[in-house]
Amino acid sequence: LRHGFPEVILAQGKKFAHLNAITSRALNHKRNLLITRIGKKRAAKLLANHPQLTHHPLPRCVTWQPTANQPNIGLVAVLCAGTSDLAVAEEAALTARMLGAQVETHYDAGVAGLHRLLAASTLLQTARVFIVVAGMEGALPSVVGGLVDRPVIAVPTSQGYGASLGGIAALLGMLNSCASNVTTVNIDNGFGAGYVAALINRTSMP
Amino acid sequence: LRHGFPEVILAQGKKFAHLNAITSRALNHKRNLLITRIGKKRAAKLLANHPQLTHHPLPRCVTWQPTANQPNIGLVAVLCAGTSDLAVAEEAALTARMLGAQVETHYDAGVAGLHRLLAASTLLQTARVFIVVAGMEGALPSVVGGLVDRPVIAVPTSQGYGASLGGIAALLGMLNSCASNVTTVNIDNGFGAGYVAALINRTSMP
Amino acid sequence: LRHGFPEVILAQGKKFAHLNAITSRALNHKRNLLITRIGKKRAAKLLANHPQLTHHPLPRCVTWQPTANQPNIGLVAVLCAGTSDLAVAEEAALTARMLGAQVETHYDAGVAGLHRLLAASTLLQTARVFIVVAGMEGALPSVVGGLVDRPVIAVPTSQGYGASLGGIAALLGMLNSCASNVTTVNIDNGFGAGYVAALINRTSMP
Amino acid sequence: LRHGFPEVILAQGKKFAHLNAITSRALNHKRNLLITRIGKKRAAKLLANHPQLTHHPLPRCVTWQPTANQPNIGLVAVLCAGTSDLAVAEEAALTARMLGAQVETHYDAGVAGLHRLLAASTLLQTARVFIVVAGMEGALPSVVGGLVDRPVIAVPTSQGYGASLGGIAALLGMLNSCASNVTTVNIDNGFGAGYVAALINRTSMP
Amino acid sequence: LRHGFPEVILAQGKKFAHLNAITSRALNHKRNLLITRIGKKRAAKLLANHPQLTHHPLPRCVTWQPTANQPNIGLVAVLCAGTSDLAVAEEAALTARMLGAQVETHYDAGVAGLHRLLAASTLLQTARVFIVVAGMEGALPSVVGGLVDRPVIAVPTSQGYGASLGGIAALLGMLNSCASNVTTVNIDNGFGAGYVAALINRTSMP
Amino acid sequence: LRHGFPEVILAQGKKFAHLNAITSRALNHKRNLLITRIGKKRAAKLLANHPQLTHHPLPRCVTWQPTANQPNIGLVAVLCAGTSDLAVAEEAALTARMLGAQVETHYDAGVAGLHRLLAASTLLQTARVFIVVAGMEGALPSVVGGLVDRPVIAVPTSQGYGASLGGIAALLGMLNSCASNVTTVNIDNGFGAGYVAALINRTSMP
Amino acid sequence: LRHGFPEVILAQGKKFAHLNAITSRALNHKRNLLITRIGKKRAAKLLANHPQLTHHPLPRCVTWQPTANQPNIGLVAVLCAGTSDLAVAEEAALTARMLGAQVETHYDAGVAGLHRLLAASTLLQTARVFIVVAGMEGALPSVVGGLVDRPVIAVPTSQGYGASLGGIAALLGMLNSCASNVTTVNIDNGFGAGYVAALINRTSMP
Amino acid sequence: LRHGFPEVILAQGKKFAHLNAITSRALNHKRNLLITRIGKKRAAKLLANHPQLTHHPLPRCVTWQPTANQPNIGLVAVLCAGTSDLAVAEEAALTARMLGAQVETHYDAGVAGLHRLLAASTLLQTARVFIVVAGMEGALPSVVGGLVDRPVIAVPTSQGYGASLGGIAALLGMLNSCASNVTTVNIDNGFGAGYVAALINRTSMP
Ligand SMILES: Nc1ncnc2c1ncn2[C@@H]1O[C@H](COP(=O)(O)O)[C@@H](O)[C@H]1O
Ligand SMILES: Nc1ncnc2c1ncn2[C@@H]1O[C@H](COP(=O)(O)O)[C@@H](O)[C@H]1O
Ligand SMILES: Nc1ncnc2c1ncn2[C@@H]1O[C@H](COP(=O)(O)O)[C@@H](O)[C@H]1O
Ligand SMILES: Nc1ncnc2c1ncn2[C@@H]1O[C@H](COP(=O)(O)O)[C@@H](O)[C@H]1O
Ligand SMILES: [Mg+2]
Ligand SMILES: [Mg+2]
Ligand SMILES: [Mg+2]
Ligand SMILES: [Mg+2]
Ligand SMILES: [Mg+2]
Ligand SMILES: [Mg+2]
Ligand SMILES: [Mg+2]
Ligand SMILES: [Mg+2]
Repeated sequence: LRHGFPEVILAQGKKFAHLNAITSRALNHKRNLLITRIGKKRAAKLLANHPQLTHHPLPRCVTWQPTANQPNIGLVAVLCAGTSDLAVAEEAALTARMLGAQVETHYDAGVAGLHRLLAASTLLQTARVFIVVAGMEGALPSVVGGLVDRPVIAVPTSQGYGASLGGIAALLGMLNSCASNVTTVNIDNGFGAGYVAALINRTSMP
Repeated sequence: LRHGFPEVILAQGKKFAHLNAITSRALNHKRNLLITRIGKKRAAKLLANHPQLTHHPLPRCVTWQPTANQPNIGLVAVLCAGTSDLAVAEEAALTARMLGAQVETHYDAGVAGLHRLLAASTLLQTARVFIVVAGMEGALPSVVGGLVDRPVIAVPTSQGYGASLGGIAALLGMLNSCASNVTTVNIDNGFGAGYVAALINRTSMP
Repeated sequence: LRHGFPEVILAQGKKFAHLNAITSRALNHKRNLLITRIGKKRAAKLLANHPQLTHHPLPRCVTWQPTANQPNIGLVAVLCAGTSDLAVAEEAALTARMLGAQVETHYDAGVAGLHRLLAASTLLQTARVFIVVAGMEGALPSVVGGLVDRPVIAVPTSQGYGASLGGIAALLGMLNSCASNVTTVNIDNGFGAGYVAALINRTSMP
Repeated sequence: LRHGFPEVILAQGKKFAHLNAITSRALNHKRNLLITRIGKKRAAKLLANHPQLTHHPLPRCVTWQPTANQPNIGLVAVLCAGTSDLAVAEEAALTARMLGAQVETHYDAGVAGLHRLLAASTLLQTARVFIVVAGMEGALPSVVGGLVDRPVIAVPTSQGYGASLGGIAALLGMLNSCASNVTTVNIDNGFGAGYVAALINRTSMP
Repeated sequence: LRHGFPEVILAQGKKFAHLNAITSRALNHKRNLLITRIGKKRAAKLLANHPQLTHHPLPRCVTWQPTANQPNIGLVAVLCAGTSDLAVAEEAALTARMLGAQVETHYDAGVAGLHRLLAASTLLQTARVFIVVAGMEGALPSVVGGLVDRPVIAVPTSQGYGASLGGIAALLGMLNSCASNVTTVNIDNGFGAGYVAALINRTSMP
Repeated sequence: LRHGFPEVILAQGKKFAHLNAITSRALNHKRNLLITRIGKKRAAKLLANHPQLTHHPLPRCVTWQPTANQPNIGLVAVLCAGTSDLAVAEEAALTARMLGAQVETHYDAGVAGLHRLLAASTLLQTARVFIVVAGMEGALPSVVGGLVDRPVIAVPTSQGYGASLGGIAALLGMLNSCASNVTTVNIDNGFGAGYVAALINRTSMP
Repeated sequence: LRHGFPEVILAQGKKFAHLNAITSRALNHKRNLLITRIGKKRAAKLLANHPQLTHHPLPRCVTWQPTANQPNIGLVAVLCAGTSDLAVAEEAALTARMLGAQVETHYDAGVAGLHRLLAASTLLQTARVFIVVAGMEGALPSVVGGLVDRPVIAVPTSQGYGASLGGIAALLGMLNSCASNVTTVNIDNGFGAGYVAALINRTSMP
Repeated sequence: LRHGFPEVILAQGKKFAHLNAITSRALNHKRNLLITRIGKKRAAKLLANHPQLTHHPLPRCVTWQPTANQPNIGLVAVLCAGTSDLAVAEEAALTARMLGAQVETHYDAGVAGLHRLLAASTLLQTARVFIVVAGMEGALPSVVGGLVDRPVIAVPTSQGYGASLGGIAALLGMLNSCASNVTTVNIDNGFGAGYVAALINRTSMP
């Protein structure tokens, strides 16, 4: 199954020399490549060395797709309230696409503005998996979970202040979701959510 | 303003002899009386000594209203998902009534079943203050807060298990509410919520 | 999709009278029924009132399946180290079966005894979804995640003592899993894991 | 009711380009506008693009009030110890004024200097709602709550060091207030406090 | 200096046989003896073996004072709000007396009822050291600290519920006291407070 | 008693303009002045405006003593392991001196090098109060407490890394001290320790 | 190396039927057996079924040693303050003996009574490994670590109250030990400490 | 035993002047010297003053070995997943070498890639002590502990994000290890692990 999956490198925590060396090696393999959690400056330095790479500043990723893509399949929905959670949502969407999923995003879905969420009813009815990104109180996955019959992957973000505790409040909210179809990944882990969503989406192909 | 307000005794943490003595003194004053957080056995013992008292087992309270009540005024709404949060919701409702508010309850308002909440639209439009009680992820106050233009008092409950941390998850969720009209009280503090709601409700009387 | 899914009642936190009333109502609907987190005494009392119910003491559940089951489909694997996590693992397995999944369990998979885990290689290669239950340091999901290409749902348990913090240590370990295919549910939430696993398993049917 | 209320934008966590775009859209609506949690540099950049905006450096806000204000009504009191909590207190006061409330501040009210608090007795007797801002041990709301018959909204601040835990100590103190008329908002959330205070103040108008 | 000080045994956590043996040994020394944190049943069992002992049920202590006491000296004040903190306050008072201090108590000093505290002005002016016991938000020591020129020893108690976190909220409040003359001991540690207060009181004797 | 005590200003958290204004006002009073928690740059700026002030870089304080000092009295000992806790120890010593105490320091007292502590036996026998400063595991106050008959004020510091949790580990250690004569102040609160030590020392003067 | 090591069963968290079955299987193997964390009642029930077993009530263990022991070797020292930590210390000692180590205990080693510790100087000089058990502030391992040149295994215990947080305070203290030769195991994990100590002790045999 | 051991200085938290002075004194003693947790800039400054020193940038140490080394003995294995934990692993290896141990490292041992760990079977069979360094979920020590019969010293690292809580997740995982031969040191404390490993390794020499 993992055939065609990209190699993934977590840039955070690695010295640049080390990161650069791993990247070189990966490029030699001619496999698709996804580098996550890489800041602007390090990305620029990496692209200077390896001009074939593409930088995605919002999701803080770098990619390379040497092989012509097969058309992406299925449907993964990525939802958030469209404010400070965009970076994480985009990291999830990019990851799922890199793993072969078709992805649709809806970034105007706040818990305190339900009508805007309900306006996305087509997406709510057609996606095979949902990724729901939320900071602060992290209530959106429960609301989405109550509206759909599909697996919902909840991604807490570190957005907020004070009692948000760097995303712990949102994380706890999601783990205690009263909706039965919700599972959770680490704070700001858009990558992990996109990865699992693509796995589920792919599983469901005939 | 506090004229007509009951004397309030927190039973928890007091030895029975001490509780009994304070109660006797309070009954002598002929003021309305509200005793909160009192278990079944201690309530029975107290009523044996003071038969004029009334026991409310679900909200774990004991009351005495020696003076004929003025008709209750305004409208306080108490909302919860109708399962394990009933005791706290009832404590809030009883408190608000003891302080002179008219109270209406709606106990079928889960975040993962929005239609049941939306069905309470008359209440959502007419109440002057909202008390929203929720355990687990504590998302209900944000949803209600987005639907109404009035102050919402959020009450986290200790219901749940594991990462609910005895109500801390719900408390954090409420403190981080993305709705601007939400304030929060302590975990399981139905009394505090009912008290402030009645104050606000009363403030708004001509 | 949810057609055929059971009604689910969380018994914990409900007064018996309330639980009994909800159960009666559910039985009238003739829908399949799953009651979770119900202790021995309350289960016995409930069965005395409703003899058609079945009690599952290990996973602490009560069920009713009035309609002849369609044959269960797909394959969900439930893994744990086979000691103190059995109850949660069985709750997950029972839930997934109630939702129509075929389930196989392997309860001899400790992190500090890898050969016993590796012995389950057929199961590792054939299941469509994995539920991995672990207490204490919660390392098993990462190890399984590294061995399979499928979604892994990690369930931390409250087993352990001291710095296990009632399951928080295992929960944190799982959220920080270095395997990309792992998502997590609340501590001891076998129900949630079984539910999502069945959803994923069902999604993948042609 | 919300007629006349400003549109509110939380600047923190948004990229500047995104913030600027939302601001432009809001200015087109000709509605009053309140931008919170915006630093000096970003405010300057925003005013360069939109010279009609006003910057309030102490409360870290930017506002626009295109429509001639109706005279503000009622009375909201904002109290703090007058040292490091000024920014949050001013954010609360500005918000309440933007929502139409008359606001009076008293910034010399430390718990360890009660006489200075008691000197504000006229304000204590005339305000309809109280906002009490405090860091460190967060005891001031309880003291004020014991002196007045009105709702008290407590705002913990992140001021302090060591065991103040970035405001958690003050927050916990306020949630456990022994005064019955106290509710709490998130750490440093002057905006939320001002918003709810204005709602309550407005409710009480004939 | 420690001449005349009692031997002290912490009963909690010791098996009865062990406790009994240590007690026997201590009685042989004919030194004053103070046993703390001992429950009713174990105290009764101990007195059955050693009838010369005295049991103090409220502070949960057992004492023996074989030598005629010198008249107690100086003045230690013990203050609390007079409700659920009595046991800890009495443990502090008993300890300070056992160490030779004269002790006066005032148990009607709630933060939300300042006039009752201010009524104790003679005590506030004459004591050489203050022990202030408080649960919930633990604000009383700051208020007392602002009124007196003497050392204040703050004792948080585990009274409260929810966000009181078993006394952590009160403890944090006291550690962050804005009054400069406050130091703190462990939650419910009336013994420690009484001990240090007596040391300070004694130090000040000519 | 407080006659002769300095005015104290906590610089941290105050804008410079505000700090400067308070300082000017204080200098007009001709009272002794102690400014704590002030960084190098702000101190320089303040001294540029008010050249009569003295800067103490290690304890991060600024002082002014316009009146000829009475000779300092009694004896306060300040102990630490002489490494990274010097700044806090010096803040305590300076504060106690500003309040009229004679102070002796011993900065070579590590728990894992007992002989160096025991070498200070004269100081251990003559001081009236002890301030013991320690980071990491915070064990030094217990050891000192077991060696002396006087009050010990324990000051946890934020030195350390990882599980030191910014001083929480040391703080908890001190609160749980098995020595009866130990009380504790906030993390890094050398000022508070010096203040209380001077109060106790002064109390003990004939 | 592990030849001759006992089979170990953790009783806690296992249903009795399950525990009994594992025990039967183990007895059939004729290998030495150590069952840990088993309460009095369950031990009695187990011995009724398997009379060859021995119960050790203080360390809460059950053992079986079918093969004549080789004489134990080396020297492991087990130290604690001799009060409430005895059970954990004895669990460590029993475990180390079951693994073939010679063990000497010294249970009178409190941090606040250093002379009693120093009295054990022969043991301090001859043991090859030290196990130091301590609750409350957990300072003993640092003191011992500073006195010896050998590995010290620190065992925090859950003894204490309030800010001891069920042993977390002691655990954090030990992890932050300023002595370089200290490593730590879980709270109350006498078994783990005894196991590793025996491994180290055995390693050092010629 | 400690004869030949280096003097160790913890640079973190010390002012440069202080660090420099201690270093000068140490160099005069002509003893081996190990300085830990020293950043690049401070190391350069120190080497400018003391050119005989050697800087090790990856483990952030500075050393001096004036005496010709005896050949290192025994075998300590240092394992990690070879990504972001290298600095801590190298600090452990360097420390153990400075204390006279022969050290072999294997930095390609991730939990989610077991085959790479199992490839190191010679090392697993020959080392006398294991140091296992891991961040995020910290599961590697349990896996290694299950494969070897020797003491395993687990070192959690602060690598990771979100729920890794700066290394607390890894630390808790290691403390709860289901392998009996695991003890733990502080987060990022490669020094401590190397020190104890060398002590154990040395103990085992004939
Ligand atoms: N943003 C991310 N968050 C969590 N895990 C990640 C992330 N990006 C990559 N990973 C995981 O880290 C692995 C690569 O780690 P490394 O070998 O250290 O670069 C990948 O195979 C993923 O399993
Ligand atoms: N063991 C469980 N843990 C978490 N959620 C559960 C559990 N059992 C049931 N639920 C959820 O709780 C809902 C029923 O809640 P209630 O209406 O309170 O009985 C179900 O629909 C599930 O979503
Ligand atoms: N370093 C410090 N830590 C804690 N409290 C302090 C400190 N320095 C001064 N204080 C207290 O803060 C008060 C002054 O606060 P302020 O009026 O905000 O300057 C003083 O009277 C002290 O009680
Ligand atoms: N990286 C480190 N982590 C923890 N403790 C250390 C470290 N480096 C040195 N130490 C300890 O700190 C002592 C030196 O502390 P100091 O006298 O403050 O330099 C050494 O003897 C070691 O016991
Ligand atoms: Mg769930
Ligand atoms: Mg709010
Ligand atoms: Mg993951
Ligand atoms: Mg309240
Ligand atoms: Mg203080
Ligand atoms: Mg003490
Ligand atoms: Mg160490
Ligand atoms: Mg272990």
